[in-house]
Amino acid sequence: MARAWHLERRPDGMPTADDFALRDIPATALADGQVRVRNLWLSVDPYMRGRMNDAKSYAAPFALGEPMGGGAVGEVIESRSDMLAVGDRVLHMGGWRDEAVLPAREAQKLPAIDAPAQAFLGQLGMPGMTAYFGLLHVAEAKPGETVFVSAAAGAVGSTVVQIAKAKGMTVIGSAGGAAKCDWVRSLGADQVIDYKGEGSVARQLSAAAPEGIDVYFDNVGGDHLDAAFATARQGARFAICGMIDIYNSGAPTQLRYIARTIAARIRMQGFLVSDWMGQAPAFYADMATWMAEGKLQRQETVVEGLEHMPEAFLGLFSGRNTGKMLVKL
Amino acid sequence: MARAWHLERRPDGMPTADDFALRDIPATALADGQVRVRNLWLSVDPYMRGRMNDAKSYAAPFALGEPMGGGAVGEVIESRSDMLAVGDRVLHMGGWRDEAVLPAREAQKLPAIDAPAQAFLGQLGMPGMTAYFGLLHVAEAKPGETVFVSAAAGAVGSTVVQIAKAKGMTVIGSAGGAAKCDWVRSLGADQVIDYKGEGSVARQLSAAAPEGIDVYFDNVGGDHLDAAFATARQGARFAICGMIDIYNSGAPTQLRYIARTIAARIRMQGFLVSDWMGQAPAFYADMATWMAEGKLQRQETVVEGLEHMPEAFLGLFSGRNTGKMLVKL
Repeated sequence: MARAWHLERRPDGMPTADDFALRDIPATALADGQVRVRNLWLSVDPYMRGRMNDAKSYAAPFALGEPMGGGAVGEVIESRSDMLAVGDRVLHMGGWRDEAVLPAREAQKLPAIDAPAQAFLGQLGMPGMTAYFGLLHVAEAKPGETVFVSAAAGAVGSTVVQIAKAKGMTVIGSAGGAAKCDWVRSLGADQVIDYKGEGSVARQLSAAAPEGIDVYFDNVGGDHLDAAFATARQGARFAICGMIDIYNSGAPTQLRYIARTIAARIRMQGFLVSDWMGQAPAFYADMATWMAEGKLQRQETVVEGLEHMPEAFLGLFSGRNTGKMLVKL
Repeated sequence: MARAWHLERRPDGMPTADDFALRDIPATALADGQVRVRNLWLSVDPYMRGRMNDAKSYAAPFALGEPMGGGAVGEVIESRSDMLAVGDRVLHMGGWRDEAVLPAREAQKLPAIDAPAQAFLGQLGMPGMTAYFGLLHVAEAKPGETVFVSAAAGAVGSTVVQIAKAKGMTVIGSAGGAAKCDWVRSLGADQVIDYKGEGSVARQLSAAAPEGIDVYFDNVGGDHLDAAFATARQGARFAICGMIDIYNSGAPTQLRYIARTIAARIRMQGFLVSDWMGQAPAFYADMATWMAEGKLQRQETVVEGLEHMPEAFLGLFSGRNTGKMLVKL
């Protein structure tokens, strides 16, 4: 019997285990055009927190009492479509469960890049695309510029660091704690800020980038965003990808330096990776090249077993992951 | 004997009259290429507050104990340059004084537009250009879009309202108090918010623009900026011109809705009008057309006498002006 995590109640602030329930889902015969996928890897991502609220946003809210969804990689075990055959490995959005039934057109065969399947949920998937298009297209970061990226030990941030280095930029990453900072340094970051360490982020950033920053890739919001306003050079561009600091707290963001927007002509631009899917081939081509050149490292934090998926998700907000957080079935 | 306002000490928070002193300035003979200008009108503008701080910004700080400067319109009374003749009326930056000596190349003859001289310090000058380029180029506002502008009874904001209407946009302006709101309505604004009235700016804006806003022209920052984040439609653009709310207070800006930047793909862009001076001819051409068509109204708040200039300046921060605040000599 297949099982899926259901949203039992809408979290108020930080979610707890009781907000979710793992339940059997009814066995269904395939309709024409559908496939059945046995999931191998499931993704947990910060954006899922937003879908747990009952608010209109870019992704529809999860329905109460219904299975949740999200990125997953699995193997087709039954097919009523010409598009996919049994044994095909696919990427799809029927996650938070061990087995998914979905239209074949909603599943994508894994691209022909020599990488483990779960990489297509991380560096070669949505988080990697987010890093690539956010840095190079939204922020228009150029070789020789100085880039600051927050949550640089996360799935998106660690890829930003490496793409920026592959493109000849100077990179300052922030992460929490010595182990993560060491890892970010090992990825090639020129400077690393420990936001749990001594001194405010603004002070640390100003010391790490005495000439200021040209680009800020924001995964965090809050004090990191304010530090970017404080140190932005003329014509700086901010790509706003996430603000994990406030997904749960709901507290207002306090910005002391936002008025520098005017004198420094800062451009702050929000984006969603979904807007860039049409350019995915460019992403795969560049990533395959950089992988072949040994310029991309990957780290994963793996939680085993569907039963532990809520813990994996909650771990995103307590900094439990280095690199991509995954659930292995 | 000519006199000029000197900066006596750097204000901490809201400036007071004691921060300034009106003093004689030494008589000087003209050097080659210079002109002597008898000022007729002097400008006070919010950006001058920034120059009173000892901080590096886009305009150099006023020096302590030295005469301040700013926009002025006057008449050439002595010339040692072929560029300007006695009797020419000119726009220049030697303000805060009754008589200025400056290189002729730093003074601009008033453009050949049929308008009173002081208009070239307001709607046909720096504030008007700020409105024009900020709305049409920085925010890229298009006919049919909904524009929100704060401080809509001010020199810049009132021009934004009228340009937006001339271009076929829907306009929501905010102003403080019934009299100013009435005036903004008389300029053609479709909706007017009294920020001193009932309900938060965010609530009032959401009622005035139930479908959301496409463009925000920011003169204020703070709660107005947050309201814009709350109501921004997909792909909204914010042109950040000023944040008068925090020029004196130094308090952090509190934003509850900034995370909407991501889902709504908001672009926030700071700008200075000086970046657009090269395109001034387009501005003068459009403004002359709109004036001829009766689409531009102008209001001025005039303080008479050089002695009262600090009061005029301080009045900018207490909402004393409707339209452009000027000092008439």
